[in-house]
Amino acid sequence: MKLTDGQLAELESKGFLVLPELFSAAEVAAIRADLPALFAERTESNIREKEGGAVRTIMGLHLRSALFGRLVRHPRLAEPARQIARPKLYVQQVKVNVKAAFEGDVWQWHYDFATHRRDDGVPAPLALNLHILLDDVNQFNGPLYFIPGSHKHGPAPTYHDTASTSYPLWVGDRATVAGLIAEGGIAPALGKAGTGLIFGDLMVHGSPGNMSPWDRAIFSVILNPVANAQTTFARPDYKHGTDFTPIEPLADDCLLVPAAASQMQSAR
Amino acid sequence: MKLTDGQLAELESKGFLVLPELFSAAEVAAIRADLPALFAERTESNIREKEGGAVRTIMGLHLRSALFGRLVRHPRLAEPARQIARPKLYVQQVKVNVKAAFEGDVWQWHYDFATHRRDDGVPAPLALNLHILLDDVNQFNGPLYFIPGSHKHGPAPTYHDTASTSYPLWVGDRATVAGLIAEGGIAPALGKAGTGLIFGDLMVHGSPGNMSPWDRAIFSVILNPVANAQTTFARPDYKHGTDFTPIEPLADDCLLVPAAASQMQSAR
Repeated sequence: MKLTDGQLAELESKGFLVLPELFSAAEVAAIRADLPALFAERTESNIREKEGGAVRTIMGLHLRSALFGRLVRHPRLAEPARQIARPKLYVQQVKVNVKAAFEGDVWQWHYDFATHRRDDGVPAPLALNLHILLDDVNQFNGPLYFIPGSHKHGPAPTYHDTASTSYPLWVGDRATVAGLIAEGGIAPALGKAGTGLIFGDLMVHGSPGNMSPWDRAIFSVILNPVANAQTTFARPDYKHGTDFTPIEPLADDCLLVPAAASQMQSAR
Repeated sequence: MKLTDGQLAELESKGFLVLPELFSAAEVAAIRADLPALFAERTESNIREKEGGAVRTIMGLHLRSALFGRLVRHPRLAEPARQIARPKLYVQQVKVNVKAAFEGDVWQWHYDFATHRRDDGVPAPLALNLHILLDDVNQFNGPLYFIPGSHKHGPAPTYHDTASTSYPLWVGDRATVAGLIAEGGIAPALGKAGTGLIFGDLMVHGSPGNMSPWDRAIFSVILNPVANAQTTFARPDYKHGTDFTPIEPLADDCLLVPAAASQMQSAR
């Protein structure tokens, strides 16, 4: 799968791409089937909400589940990523942000590079964040909000917010965020389950809490050029993977026909 | 000002009314002009957010400001209320819910009668809640969410939530709220500043946090029939007024021509 010139131009201009029906209902069901067992695990890479105790995010999934190990190499994610960034990419972070019905808390305005630079010593904002919506996402259940064009302004001032939620984050300075929104507005990333999202390391984004009765789980893999790997190692492996082996895309049916994936790997 | 038969039928069916341009820009400006001094007062009737310290709600305003004293008797609020409920209404609660940009926290799903009955011993769900949007309200800055038709189901199960926010509230049981939304959906009350809202004591409503750069202040007065007055007095006067004198509507220009209001009152 390759992105069209029009899609590449849109990504360049707005800073994000929404790809409806990137994954089928059967593929989404296969991904979701692995979640209950992963949620149930008692591990520090399952992070709960500050209040209420619902799971907020589960991380390091490619090391914990064979299916997620294949998903991070799925050609509908890996090939566009190699096309946009570099041919040699490693798996930096793999998670499902859950945002449970009634409980899911806000993700404050931020851009990923603030954390990648300050916490991990990543040299340049070249990583890509690739999402798959695992639930239908509407305006009420905590959609991702993008600020179109915010990626063109370069790294914005941030501060380390350890209080608002259970997940410490370098978040955007309010005056800067207000200025970016005055210019670009807010674009909520809505869509049916199976929709894909792609955005870069400087895109300012966030998401509101979920007070609706509808869960909102999103899969996310961050792929980073091997040549741009982290240089400091303060965070645990599930927040920034230390295996810098370049990923090789698997077969297109690798989620539904696991054997095909393993055959491809052994034939390589 | 009288509501039309069509508006009364809509209120009966959906449980709420949205009245665009109920107040003019000049009137909204007059109301807003009183707010900074009220915000600045150190009083227990100014309630701050749990985190960050922004003002969440300021209460008892008709006792603290001559303008708000007139606003609760404004004919565009008081006459529809007398038409819908009873001719003799007293001022039960007067506030501005602020929901500041970046900081404003959620109001959980609730209906007002749960609090009016349990905390104040109000006999029946006859009170009306009348709002004026004091900022433009869009989908991003914490609009009120109504569940259309929820008022027809009678008092729903609730629990007393003293943890989620700085304001203790009898909130809707989640299974019940999910069922009501499955039936009626979620209707966000959007509109320009000056828009009016009317809803009754059983309407299940709430509002999400405000992570946008746009403030969202809403004026609210609750009017309750004198014959349905509170019977227990656990809450302070600014949460439930104890002056059961029926209100008399003032002149239509009472916000912009204060003299007209005082002349009417002295002529009575």
